[in-house]
Amino acid sequence: VSPPPTLAALFSTDPIDRARHSIGRSYRDVIRGIRGELGATVDAVVRPTSEADVVAALDWANDAGVAVIPFGGGTSVVGGVEPTRCEDYDGTISLDMSNLDRVLEVDDVSRAARVQAGVLGPALEDQLRPSGLTLRFFPQSFERSSVGGWLATRAAGHYATRWTHIDDVTESIRAVTPIGVWESRRLPGSGAGPSPDRMLLGSEGTLGVITEAWLRLQPRPVHRARATVAFATFAEACAAVRAIVQSGLDPAACRAIDGDEARITGTHPDGAAVVVLGFESAHSPVDELLARAVECCADFGGAVVDGSAAAGGAGDAWRSTFVRAPYLREWLVLLGVLTETFETAMTWDRLPAYVEGVRAATLDAVRRVCGAGLVTCRLTHAYADGAAPYFTVLAPARRGSELDQWAEIKAAASEAILAADGTITHHHAVGRDHVPWYSRQQPEPFRRALQEFKNEVDGSGILNPGVLGLRV
Amino acid sequence: VSPPPTLAALFSTDPIDRARHSIGRSYRDVIRGIRGELGATVDAVVRPTSEADVVAALDWANDAGVAVIPFGGGTSVVGGVEPTRCEDYDGTISLDMSNLDRVLEVDDVSRAARVQAGVLGPALEDQLRPSGLTLRFFPQSFERSSVGGWLATRAAGHYATRWTHIDDVTESIRAVTPIGVWESRRLPGSGAGPSPDRMLLGSEGTLGVITEAWLRLQPRPVHRARATVAFATFAEACAAVRAIVQSGLDPAACRAIDGDEARITGTHPDGAAVVVLGFESAHSPVDELLARAVECCADFGGAVVDGSAAAGGAGDAWRSTFVRAPYLREWLVLLGVLTETFETAMTWDRLPAYVEGVRAATLDAVRRVCGAGLVTCRLTHAYADGAAPYFTVLAPARRGSELDQWAEIKAAASEAILAADGTITHHHAVGRDHVPWYSRQQPEPFRRALQEFKNEVDGSGILNPGVLGLRV
Repeated sequence: VSPPPTLAALFSTDPIDRARHSIGRSYRDVIRGIRGELGATVDAVVRPTSEADVVAALDWANDAGVAVIPFGGGTSVVGGVEPTRCEDYDGTISLDMSNLDRVLEVDDVSRAARVQAGVLGPALEDQLRPSGLTLRFFPQSFERSSVGGWLATRAAGHYATRWTHIDDVTESIRAVTPIGVWESRRLPGSGAGPSPDRMLLGSEGTLGVITEAWLRLQPRPVHRARATVAFATFAEACAAVRAIVQSGLDPAACRAIDGDEARITGTHPDGAAVVVLGFESAHSPVDELLARAVECCADFGGAVVDGSAAAGGAGDAWRSTFVRAPYLREWLVLLGVLTETFETAMTWDRLPAYVEGVRAATLDAVRRVCGAGLVTCRLTHAYADGAAPYFTVLAPARRGSELDQWAEIKAAASEAILAADGTITHHHAVGRDHVPWYSRQQPEPFRRALQEFKNEVDGSGILNPGVLGLRV
Repeated sequence: VSPPPTLAALFSTDPIDRARHSIGRSYRDVIRGIRGELGATVDAVVRPTSEADVVAALDWANDAGVAVIPFGGGTSVVGGVEPTRCEDYDGTISLDMSNLDRVLEVDDVSRAARVQAGVLGPALEDQLRPSGLTLRFFPQSFERSSVGGWLATRAAGHYATRWTHIDDVTESIRAVTPIGVWESRRLPGSGAGPSPDRMLLGSEGTLGVITEAWLRLQPRPVHRARATVAFATFAEACAAVRAIVQSGLDPAACRAIDGDEARITGTHPDGAAVVVLGFESAHSPVDELLARAVECCADFGGAVVDGSAAAGGAGDAWRSTFVRAPYLREWLVLLGVLTETFETAMTWDRLPAYVEGVRAATLDAVRRVCGAGLVTCRLTHAYADGAAPYFTVLAPARRGSELDQWAEIKAAASEAILAADGTITHHHAVGRDHVPWYSRQQPEPFRRALQEFKNEVDGSGILNPGVLGLRV
């Protein structure tokens, strides 16, 4: 690719830079990174310093027939940033948004902020801190992922009840498309036709490059209480989570963890299933709310093993492991452990059978492929009508065969999910990896019409080719 | 239109039936109804008794080039059900969904129900009652409007904080399109691509005929408390509403009403601005929550004029007027009063200036057109980041000129809304009447792509022509 002189200063063709932008953070990515077998890499990394640069880069790419992969923090675990299915283009660039990293405006009356898409989680919160407000949106990738990435992939935060997905805190979005700027009005609510924001949310870079958004903020919490409650079985822990979220209590955190995962993460040394509970408020003490949630747990045989408003204890062990998990994984992989996660969602009526069915199908595949292994489960997000089960696979990998091994396990898990009417993803997005299952999950008229929608805003099909299964 | 023998039994060509299906409930509709000047009427009313009938009717209409206007309760106030812009078709039918009026399934574990689109509010709640659950969704049109209509128009209920729009309680939707059935999976949450449900929500019959949905339910509330609080000014009442919704209190009702409207509705005999507060819970007493909300009001000079958990008082007067208002209006119209409402939304930072600006522009037009009159305002829905102002116009009409008079006032109000970055509707929908302003409000790339989306699912353009400004 040869950029026009006006854009040349934004282009990097450094091989390491290009390689780092051509790979995400899935097990498959880690293995390929270790092996140095990335496959195709982008031809250049382009770093706009303004929205005008984004417009100029898209105009140039559109004319030159160059594919454009929007890049936020690069934490995709579904092949969202890699240049496969870009082979038919006259080149591929990674559009790295990291220079657009400012909070442009804080409206402390409406409690909202206008934020550039490239800002990562910690830098966002740093810039909001003087206002006393917070987005309070903490996906597991928080430290390395960007606002634009959250919006494009419908990320979910880990204050994981009530407002879970970034969708819920989005007031308006601004994006650059090949046919012009797409900007919605800043509104607290609207019933004027289908929501334009909801089409960009989940578009994963295929409909436009998100440059800014107005996001809803909240005051920083000052009251906190938490507890860890142990159960005889994971099913009872899940039932307690259901009772709590259906009670109108709105815990900030309410997560069920099965025995194996509790033991591995140090949340419960003897491997009892647990529920980790947290309440937070900016307005009033939450101890009574916690006490009522603990009562719900007791109805299902749950006993508090650790509960306090102070630091320390099992909840902390879990939190700390949770945040460190993605980093730890790279070490496990080096030690020859196949380690990957997948996640889905289901209504409560079918959840127990669903969790056990998906787990069993996955474990079958693990044993067939690896000889032995473990499939653990936690509920990461809970709703009044259902929850999001999150599975972790741990198994001995065969060096050199890791990718094939994981592909076979992933296919077995995904088929079980699809067959039981689940979703192929609750918050990891579709990317390129999930396309075979996502395509079957979409209502067919919607799938066809989404393609035509895409064709209108991106007639040359330069935006993130292959993602969501969209064709040129 | 001449139906095939297999569909003939569903067809009615009775003139009164056709006329009743060709008009909504706006002031313009009432005037035209009184005058007997409906303009074009649909050629037939078709009443499917099953989804298979809907499929057959759409197949026939598609082949015959007949326009199809989906009809729920017929309470549109934006020209959503009238056959204007249908002139180029070989006929127009109103597809009356009232026979599809059953709750098909109640899942009391997940607290959700599978509901047919044609059921009206009271019949829905009657069928849910044995389960102890409720949708608790009460638009002002509740008694006469349908689930399908709520979904298609993104209706808003009058427990008006937290979950306001029907969007928020929708688990999945099933619809019939000319290219096949569109059904989303039943999920508590998902991040798999742009939400298909969110495209049907607000589609107003242009993308498909909604036949069923899974909707989220809640237990019936048993604890209640409410109060009416008087303020020196409407601005202070609005400020109190902001303080309450930003406090994390989640009132079931929290509505500011200006002095003129409080006097007219009997909410406050001396015409003080008021806030009507209501708390409800299925789980625990709410008196303390009400007390905290009243404290927020006191910070802005608000004094309780009526507060009790028992029946009666000013809050009741307001509620009763609220529900009766649409019926009362027909009498006012007969007495020669021009009476109509319009509504919008705005973030808190700009709300006070917005309300006064829109009110002033509307009042200018009222005085110019009618010589005198009143423009009152209430906040019907409140969010942490903004609210929905709802304006009522009362003025002496000139017999024979009512439609022109209202058109001029409506245009002035709408221009003021658009110019100040508001939305042309918060919950009344777009229909045919709002198209000139809706088209300007949409992000341009979205507007173009929505047309292509429509073209794919409805290539012949038979579905509700003219609504949302979509072309054939």
